[in-house]
Amino acid sequence: MKVAVFRKEHFNAAHRLYNPEWNDEKNKAVFGKCSNPNFHGHNYDLIVRLIGEVDKTTGYVYDMKKLSDLIKEKVTSQFDHKNLNLDVAHFKELNPTAENIAIVIYNLLRPEIEESIDLKVKLYETERNYVEYPAS
Amino acid sequence: MKVAVFRKEHFNAAHRLYNPEWNDEKNKAVFGKCSNPNFHGHNYDLIVRLIGEVDKTTGYVYDMKKLSDLIKEKVTSQFDHKNLNLDVAHFKELNPTAENIAIVIYNLLRPEIEESIDLKVKLYETERNYVEYPAS
Amino acid sequence: MKVAVFRKEHFNAAHRLYNPEWNDEKNKAVFGKCSNPNFHGHNYDLIVRLIGEVDKTTGYVYDMKKLSDLIKEKVTSQFDHKNLNLDVAHFKELNPTAENIAIVIYNLLRPEIEESIDLKVKLYETERNYVEYPAS
Amino acid sequence: MKVAVFRKEHFNAAHRLYNPEWNDEKNKAVFGKCSNPNFHGHNYDLIVRLIGEVDKTTGYVYDMKKLSDLIKEKVTSQFDHKNLNLDVAHFKELNPTAENIAIVIYNLLRPEIEESIDLKVKLYETERNYVEYPAS
Amino acid sequence: MKVAVFRKEHFNAAHRLYNPEWNDEKNKAVFGKCSNPNFHGHNYDLIVRLIGEVDKTTGYVYDMKKLSDLIKEKVTSQFDHKNLNLDVAHFKELNPTAENIAIVIYNLLRPEIEESIDLKVKLYETERNYVEYPAS
Amino acid sequence: MKVAVFRKEHFNAAHRLYNPEWNDEKNKAVFGKCSNPNFHGHNYDLIVRLIGEVDKTTGYVYDMKKLSDLIKEKVTSQFDHKNLNLDVAHFKELNPTAENIAIVIYNLLRPEIEESIDLKVKLYETERNYVEYPAS
Repeated sequence: MKVAVFRKEHFNAAHRLYNPEWNDEKNKAVFGKCSNPNFHGHNYDLIVRLIGEVDKTTGYVYDMKKLSDLIKEKVTSQFDHKNLNLDVAHFKELNPTAENIAIVIYNLLRPEIEESIDLKVKLYETERNYVEYPAS
Repeated sequence: MKVAVFRKEHFNAAHRLYNPEWNDEKNKAVFGKCSNPNFHGHNYDLIVRLIGEVDKTTGYVYDMKKLSDLIKEKVTSQFDHKNLNLDVAHFKELNPTAENIAIVIYNLLRPEIEESIDLKVKLYETERNYVEYPAS
Repeated sequence: MKVAVFRKEHFNAAHRLYNPEWNDEKNKAVFGKCSNPNFHGHNYDLIVRLIGEVDKTTGYVYDMKKLSDLIKEKVTSQFDHKNLNLDVAHFKELNPTAENIAIVIYNLLRPEIEESIDLKVKLYETERNYVEYPAS
Repeated sequence: MKVAVFRKEHFNAAHRLYNPEWNDEKNKAVFGKCSNPNFHGHNYDLIVRLIGEVDKTTGYVYDMKKLSDLIKEKVTSQFDHKNLNLDVAHFKELNPTAENIAIVIYNLLRPEIEESIDLKVKLYETERNYVEYPAS
Repeated sequence: MKVAVFRKEHFNAAHRLYNPEWNDEKNKAVFGKCSNPNFHGHNYDLIVRLIGEVDKTTGYVYDMKKLSDLIKEKVTSQFDHKNLNLDVAHFKELNPTAENIAIVIYNLLRPEIEESIDLKVKLYETERNYVEYPAS
Repeated sequence: MKVAVFRKEHFNAAHRLYNPEWNDEKNKAVFGKCSNPNFHGHNYDLIVRLIGEVDKTTGYVYDMKKLSDLIKEKVTSQFDHKNLNLDVAHFKELNPTAENIAIVIYNLLRPEIEESIDLKVKLYETERNYVEYPAS
């Protein structure tokens, strides 16, 4: 049977929720204070889950040091202490909701991990609001 | 692919575990100190999980403000600072174990959320004892 | 120099806030939902802090096992899974606010610990409301 | 003896660290990634501690509901989902380090609470970096 | 529908990661500081999840007191304050990675719980590294 | 007035409690399972508190990056993934109780920080047992 392994990382970023096809009034109506033009921010906690077979020689599904380095290289070094809307190309035309951020992170990591290993991303925007992709 | 979104709320309530078809001795034998006739209580943490498609115009599966308001209206405003056995109609004839509280909460929320969205409820009675319904 | 040592324990209890010299209306006005006649409850986290010299032979200020046993004997075995108002003699005529519970716990522990050791009690009623006695 | 009471609130905000008397190079050298021109952000946890006598009729040092409302009115409603540098007047000419934010919060709350009550503010910028003012 | 119930326990243990078929150099290359010959250690948090039908007479899927006692008897009393490599027979020839510890715990508990109940084990080696078996 | 700043770091280590002047029986009687000859271990959380004046040009009491680097250089790089009794010179003749570890850490950091700044160390051996030095 397979084992799931989890690695938690974090980053701090600014963002605002905004749909450029809507006027300010509608953005305000839909996104409320999350649409503040000057941005607000969060301490994002990111948990990456891999599922795979345990390697007999190491007892590992995946080397957690290698996974941590991969997350730092592909995700947190790009997102940490950044403005997601202005500084991160993926959100130039994509609203940086927790849902969309999780999908972007998944898409950044998926090509880096062998296909036989299942990947899932959990992203905490706050302790009380968080998302998971793909949904199981 | 679908995304799961999670919202955490809480309430503080008193309860006791008790089966009216049993005498006190048997209730004490089965439920131990949880059967104290004068009640005890908990800080319940409630996590509601929805799974659905991400709306292209909002980037949301579900508006977390709307979900928070819904949980408050249907659940926590009824349960918070209450005695579950005495003050909450659902437990007049149902033992308020964590399992049964979670099922009641699910049944309160299910009709309020569109059928295409999957719903799950996680309820922490203490940091060390918690339940999830439906079980995946 | 002295070292402070901390031990965390917990108990789950029901209570209500109520001043018998006031009518129900006034109790409701002052204590709000905390005055619900049928009680509500909490998971109380209790942190006991002792300050003293480090014993050269053990490297301990105080044996944490002994402190844990003492807290269980004098406090949590009396309070856990109880109704503070109805089941605990100390609150028969004392309103079980977090402040008063902390003072009662301090008074229960103080005679059991040598005078040369400083004692302080921190009590979490919820993650967001907590008290400390004596105040430093 | 006096009792300390604590209330935890939170807010999410964007900020950047920047000294306008320095050029960008020096700001970058001193503040590193915290000086990103497009801002980053945090989930700030704020703990307000009051020390006072326990009122005999209520068993309270201070009504936690009143304290929570006060913090919301004077602090979090001004700071939450805002850009501290651009949206909050107090930081127009004051660098929004955790230290300075804590001092501003203290100064906002101090006039609202009777002088006989001791006030202290603890501010978590992240789980790993936090400050307390005044220092004890 | 079925309900999942969770019980959290913990133990503190020493371990090292080591493959006896490799020389020290290769062990060091693969396991890094986790291969320190004199061991290091962790506070392990263990969460056991059971899924089953709610018993109509008790409102329980499983008595949490009974589950806690079972985990203590079969797992934590064997692992707590032990050196996993030297003191626990299961790891005499099995590398005590989090993956392998979780599988061993699952195998210790599985025969003790009726077959109709689904069992899963989650093991936190640190707050940032944890595993789940079987993977869902 | 002065501000306190806090930085949290962590390390994972093995240890045993043992007084070489006592026989095994007495060590066992005093230290119980903490005296297991083959060691056990912990995830230690270390919080370093500095108190000082806020620098007008930076808004900092102390650069948290610099403090983090200092703690890593002087403490966690020496203690992490080590056996405190066997691998860390400071405990060759000093029992590695939480109290003594905190004092050693204080003594390692004190010479590195200017005298005008007050230093305190808090060390969590587990979530339930922790110490602070110097005691305030």
